[in-house]
Amino acid sequence: MNYEERTMESDKIYEGHILSLRVDTVELPNQKYSKREIVDHLGAAGVVALTEDDQLVLVKQYRKAVEKSLIEIPAGLVKTNEEPGLAAQRELLEETGYECSQIDFLADFYPSPGFSTEKVHLFLARGLVKREANLDDTEFLEVLQIPFEEALRKVRLGEFNDAKTMLAILLAKDFMEAK
Amino acid sequence: MNYEERTMESDKIYEGHILSLRVDTVELPNQKYSKREIVDHLGAAGVVALTEDDQLVLVKQYRKAVEKSLIEIPAGLVKTNEEPGLAAQRELLEETGYECSQIDFLADFYPSPGFSTEKVHLFLARGLVKREANLDDTEFLEVLQIPFEEALRKVRLGEFNDAKTMLAILLAKDFMEAK
Repeated sequence: MNYEERTMESDKIYEGHILSLRVDTVELPNQKYSKREIVDHLGAAGVVALTEDDQLVLVKQYRKAVEKSLIEIPAGLVKTNEEPGLAAQRELLEETGYECSQIDFLADFYPSPGFSTEKVHLFLARGLVKREANLDDTEFLEVLQIPFEEALRKVRLGEFNDAKTMLAILLAKDFMEAK
Repeated sequence: MNYEERTMESDKIYEGHILSLRVDTVELPNQKYSKREIVDHLGAAGVVALTEDDQLVLVKQYRKAVEKSLIEIPAGLVKTNEEPGLAAQRELLEETGYECSQIDFLADFYPSPGFSTEKVHLFLARGLVKREANLDDTEFLEVLQIPFEEALRKVRLGEFNDAKTMLAILLAKDFMEAK
């Protein structure tokens, strides 16, 4: 079945730094009209980075939207025309100071397809070499390392709450087991 | 370390039907100010619904934000003061016509904590009994059933791209194996 919604009108509400907002008027399959509130977002890339001895590199940072500090995989916005895999490696280096010699694609996902265009690309990085981290002056984060198996336990026990982090750890486990 | 950001000012940009947008001015740990663009969202509940013979109940619907049809677990917005578990059961019934006699909590997650307050609550529903679906007149969707193990394979192969669907299926697998 094809329930595609035709855009009849698009009202730009806000154009911002990391997101924009528009309200589209769409024609539904029953020919009625409805409004769709849509957040335009560049998309992001995140990376499960594993050291030689199976330590997972994580970052802890304050997330204003949810008013708490979250533990997450290194991640960040994909720049216009940037390859997601390169964005993941760039963010890994900037946030944690690690370069990697091997990068594998895990999966793409939509965090909130009900209202947001955001797509997140997940990777697995191995062969890590320590360089210098390089945060911009509005980024404050703490780098953590915990055994990968402990991270997996934390996902299963509900101790991590960030979608990309939970998904990436579960998918990395399956990816490595399938080899 | 505490990197909490203090709100100095909050500008309401838009107040909508399923979301609102504000731009907060925050004080960073280095005493500088920065802007945070934040989407306020009620939150959602989603449910892995399994029939007696291990078929997973899914819904296929057009998602305007990403301009494509996605296959997802039944889910929807949590109403003000509604228990997430009851929201999950309500949405399951409205979208697919199934009631359940058993519901277990799987996990909570933040789809996009970088800009959105949205929290999603995931459940596992069993003991399904077929009643009548009841969609509102702006909702168009198709109900599908596939074996749970096939759904799990599709997550691992990257054939499902909705965060809550991928996470819920992977976590339901672990939940049932742990019993």
